[in-house]
Amino acid sequence: MTVWIHRRPASEVDADIATAAGPLAGWRLAIKDNVDVAGLPTTAACPDYAYLPEHDAPAVAALRAAGAVVVGKTNLDQFATGLVGTRSPYGVVENSLRPGYVSGGSSSGSAAAVATGDVDIAIGTDTAGSGRIPAAFHGLVGIKPTVGVISTDGVVPACRSYDCVTILARDLATADRAMAAMAAARPGNSSLRAQPTDVPTREWPADIRLAAPRQPVVAVFSTLADLDPLWHRAFERTVAKLRDQGARIVEIDAAPFLAAARLLYDGGLVAERYAAVGQFVDAHPESVDPTVGSIIRAAREIPAHRLVTDLAALEGLRATAMASLTGADVLLVPTAPMHPTIAEVAVDPVGVNSRLGTYTNFCNLFDLCAVAVPTDEPFFGVTVLARAFEDAVALDVAALITGTELGESVWPMAAAPVQELIVFGAHLRGQPLEHQLTELGARWGGVVETAPHYRLAALDTVPPKPAVTRVPATESGVAVVGERWMLSPAALGRFLASLPAPMQLGAVELADGTWRTGFGCGGAAAESAKDISEYGGWLAALAAGAVS
Amino acid sequence: MTVWIHRRPASEVDADIATAAGPLAGWRLAIKDNVDVAGLPTTAACPDYAYLPEHDAPAVAALRAAGAVVVGKTNLDQFATGLVGTRSPYGVVENSLRPGYVSGGSSSGSAAAVATGDVDIAIGTDTAGSGRIPAAFHGLVGIKPTVGVISTDGVVPACRSYDCVTILARDLATADRAMAAMAAARPGNSSLRAQPTDVPTREWPADIRLAAPRQPVVAVFSTLADLDPLWHRAFERTVAKLRDQGARIVEIDAAPFLAAARLLYDGGLVAERYAAVGQFVDAHPESVDPTVGSIIRAAREIPAHRLVTDLAALEGLRATAMASLTGADVLLVPTAPMHPTIAEVAVDPVGVNSRLGTYTNFCNLFDLCAVAVPTDEPFFGVTVLARAFEDAVALDVAALITGTELGESVWPMAAAPVQELIVFGAHLRGQPLEHQLTELGARWGGVVETAPHYRLAALDTVPPKPAVTRVPATESGVAVVGERWMLSPAALGRFLASLPAPMQLGAVELADGTWRTGFGCGGAAAESAKDISEYGGWLAALAAGAVS
Repeated sequence: MTVWIHRRPASEVDADIATAAGPLAGWRLAIKDNVDVAGLPTTAACPDYAYLPEHDAPAVAALRAAGAVVVGKTNLDQFATGLVGTRSPYGVVENSLRPGYVSGGSSSGSAAAVATGDVDIAIGTDTAGSGRIPAAFHGLVGIKPTVGVISTDGVVPACRSYDCVTILARDLATADRAMAAMAAARPGNSSLRAQPTDVPTREWPADIRLAAPRQPVVAVFSTLADLDPLWHRAFERTVAKLRDQGARIVEIDAAPFLAAARLLYDGGLVAERYAAVGQFVDAHPESVDPTVGSIIRAAREIPAHRLVTDLAALEGLRATAMASLTGADVLLVPTAPMHPTIAEVAVDPVGVNSRLGTYTNFCNLFDLCAVAVPTDEPFFGVTVLARAFEDAVALDVAALITGTELGESVWPMAAAPVQELIVFGAHLRGQPLEHQLTELGARWGGVVETAPHYRLAALDTVPPKPAVTRVPATESGVAVVGERWMLSPAALGRFLASLPAPMQLGAVELADGTWRTGFGCGGAAAESAKDISEYGGWLAALAAGAVS
Repeated sequence: MTVWIHRRPASEVDADIATAAGPLAGWRLAIKDNVDVAGLPTTAACPDYAYLPEHDAPAVAALRAAGAVVVGKTNLDQFATGLVGTRSPYGVVENSLRPGYVSGGSSSGSAAAVATGDVDIAIGTDTAGSGRIPAAFHGLVGIKPTVGVISTDGVVPACRSYDCVTILARDLATADRAMAAMAAARPGNSSLRAQPTDVPTREWPADIRLAAPRQPVVAVFSTLADLDPLWHRAFERTVAKLRDQGARIVEIDAAPFLAAARLLYDGGLVAERYAAVGQFVDAHPESVDPTVGSIIRAAREIPAHRLVTDLAALEGLRATAMASLTGADVLLVPTAPMHPTIAEVAVDPVGVNSRLGTYTNFCNLFDLCAVAVPTDEPFFGVTVLARAFEDAVALDVAALITGTELGESVWPMAAAPVQELIVFGAHLRGQPLEHQLTELGARWGGVVETAPHYRLAALDTVPPKPAVTRVPATESGVAVVGERWMLSPAALGRFLASLPAPMQLGAVELADGTWRTGFGCGGAAAESAKDISEYGGWLAALAAGAVS
C-alpha cells in the first residue's frame, strides 16, 4: 500500500466502471490524498490529521460526472510539502520504473498509479512542482493549469494562494480530455454569478490566445544550472526537435526565475504553509514527518512585514522575468535537474528537495501555466511554461515535442469564452491572410460547408478575396467550402475592427442548418465580382486558375 | 503653510502657466507630499524622512505633460496614515470652509488647496479613504480609480498593495479630464510590453463596460451604521434623486463590507505599513507623529501567518460582498459617517479616525473603484463604488447625482481598449434594439454621417431594420445619418456573434473620409429591400412613415 493510502474494493470499482457514462466513461482515476473524495478519509499523508469528507472536491466531482471512476487515494509527501515522495508515514514511494530512485513528489502515489497502469488518469496538486516532478520521473504528462482556473475547494492547502489541481496521464491527449472535464465544471464565467467559495476561481479573460503560432518562439535559459550532463544533451535534442519543426529559439537569463524559486521556501511565503496546518503541527509534533514538521514550524515566527517585503521582491522579479519573455510564446525548461536516489534524499532531505525544485518553484509564483512532458531520455522530462490563461499555447508546444495531434479543441476552450468565424478565402489555412487570425490567437477548427444557398464570386482586391453572398430564396445557390476558426470575443472584435471594405462579417448558414459568424460582402461589390460559384470553394477556384 | 509643505514661488508658477500647452494648459496643480515632484523634497509629512527626488512620479509627469503646472506640495496625515488631517508636524489642516472641524485626510492639504481656489486640481492618494474623505469635507469630487491602473511609482507607500493615486477637483468633469491625462500616460496595454516597475500597473481587460445603463441598478446598505442623522436624511434625498432619474434601488447587507473595513487596521494588513516605513519609524521615534508611530510599530510583531489568515478572511468577505452585488451596477454609500471637530479627534485620535473609515476602508480591499461627490448637504458627500475597471460606470452614476454632462468620452477610454460601431436603425438611441448595446456596456458616442456613397433601404424584418449598402463608384449615393457607439473589443465580438442574417458588420466610410466599423447588409437581402435613401436616415424615414 505504499502507492495507495486507501483503495476501493475492486468489485466496487468494476461495478462503477460497468455503468459509467460520459466522455471519460470508465476511466480509472486515482486521487492524491490531499483532495477530498466523499466517503474516503483525507489524510494528507498524516493519519492523525485525517477527516472524512462528506463531499467530493469539485475537481473530483467533475471527473466523476464525466464518467471517471475513483480507484482510491494515493500517497504523497505529507501536506504536499516536498518534491521527493519520501516524506510519508505510509512509506517511501519508490520509483516504479527505476528501483532505488525516488518517485518525485509530492504527487508521488498518483504518478506511480498511472505509470504502473493501475489507473488511466490521476489528480495531483502542484504548488512548487508537485504535479510536474513526479510526472517527469515516470515518463508521464502532467498538466498544471493556470492558478485559480480549477477550483481548489476540498484540497488541503499547502500554500493556499499558489496551489493548483493537476492531471497526470500517460499521454497529452488523455490529460487534455481530463482537464476539459474539470474545466467545464467550474462556476460560470460571469463575475455577476460568482459564488462564495473557499478559494475563488478566476475568470477566463475575454482575450486569451487559443493556440500557439504554427512556428512558436520558444525561450530557453542561456545556462541550465545543476543539470545532469546526460539530461543536458537530452534537453538540447528536445530543443533541436522544436527547431526542426519551425520553432524559433531565443535565450534568456535564468536569474530572476531562479531567485523567485528560492523565495518560495527561504522566505516569508512559507507562512502560507503554517497558516494552513501550523496549528495542527504545533499540537501534534509526534504525528508529523520530521522534515515536513521542521519546515512548517520554522514559518511560525516569520513576521508579517517580511512576507510583505518578500511579496514585493517577488513582484519585482516577476516583472523582470516577464519582460525577458517579451516576444516569446513559451518558456521551455527541464522539469527536474537530476534524478536522486532514495538514499541520496535520506542523507540530505532538504538540500536535494530544494535542488529538485530549481525549474519548477517559480512557475506558480510568476502566474505561469505548465505542461510537463517526457522526452526521449528516460526519467528526464521538460516543461513548457506559458503566461497565465495561455494554457492552450503551452499545450500546442508540448504537442510538438511529443508528436501529439491535439485536434481542434483543447481543454481551455471548455471554460474560456470562444467565438467562431467561418472564412472562405484569404484567411484559409495557408492563404496570405491566415496570419491575421493566428496573430490574434485563433485556433483552426476544421473544414466546413455552407448550406446550398450561396453564391461565390472573386473580388478584384489585393490579395484576391471571395465574396460569399446569400442568394434570394427564389434562386438556386451552391454550398461553399470554408474553414472554421475559433477565437476569443476580443480577438473577433479586433479582427472585425481591422477589416477593410467591402468585406463584412455576419451570420452564415452551414450545411447542418446552424448559423455561424462568417465572411460576407457588401452588396454592390459582390454584384460586380466575377462569379465562381461553380467551383464550390476558393481553393478549388484557385486550383482551376479561375482566380488570378 | 499648514496647507502647503512646499510652495513654488508665484513668479515661477505664473511663468509656467504663461507657456503651458496641452489639454490641461495652465491648470494649477497641487501635489500631496507623498508623491514625487522632481526638485521638491518629498516629506510624507515627516521632515526627517524627506528626500529630494530626481524625477516626477509618472502621475505627476503625465499631468505636467498635459499642461498642468505644479504649485506646490501639500500637507497630509503623516505617511498617509489617517483620515483626519491632524497627524502632521506641519500642523493640523483645519477645514477651510468650517472652522474648528477637520479637513479630513490623509490628503488634507490637497483638498484644502482645491477648496480655497488655490489650485484647479490636486493629486491625492487613497488606501483606506484618503482621497475621498477630504473631498467630502470640502464639497469636492474625488476620483479613486481601480487599484493599479494609475502608476504608484514615486509614491511613498502606505499599504503598497492597495495604494491609489487620486484626483481632487471642484467638479466631476474637471476631475475626469485630469484622470484622462494620467490614464493615457500609463505603459502600453499589451502584456508583451510590460516593463519592470516598483509596482506594476494593471492591464485594462478587453471586456470592460464603458457606460452605466441609462437606468442603473444602485445598491445601498439596508442599514447605515453610525451615520449623522442630518446626513442620513441627505443620503435619502440623494437616493430619491437617483430614483427620480430612473435608477432602481436595491438594499444589501453591509456586514461583509464593514467587516473588511475592520481588517484593514485591526489585522495583519497593517504589516504593509511597517514594511513601507517601519525601519525608519523604529530608528527615528522622535521624528514620527505619536499616533502614526504607534500604529506602525504595532505592526512589527504581527506574524506572517496572521497576515495569510487575514488575507484569506478578506477573500471570503469579498466573495460574499460581491455576490450580494449581483445584478447591481454600483454601490452607493455615505463617504464619511460624520464630520468631527479637531477637538474631538484630539480626545480620541484612533477611535474617531476608525469611525471615519466605516464606508471607505473596504473599497480598495475589495478591488472597487470609487467616485466621491458632494450632495446638497454641506460637508456630506456620497461615494459611488463600482467593480474593478468599471470606473466609467461609477462616473456615470456620479454624474446623475451631480447633474454633470460627462460627454461622449470618459477617462477610462483614454487607456482601455475601445472599438467603435456605427449603427443606422434599430440600434439607434431610443430604438428597439439599443438595449443590445447598452447591456454590453457600450457608450453612446454621438451622431455621425456617412460619406455620400450609400443607399438606404428598409428590410422586411421584425423589428424593421435598415440596409445600408455602398453604391458602385459609377452611381450616385446619399449620406446616411447614423450614431456612433463605443464598446470593448470583446463586446464588439459578442455583438457580432449574436447578429442575425442578413445584417453584417464591416467598414463604412464617414463624411470625413475615415472608415469605421458599422452596419451593412448581405447583398441579396438589400437588393430586394424598399429604397428609402431619399430620407437620408432611419429616424427621418420613420418620422415620414416610410417604414412601417
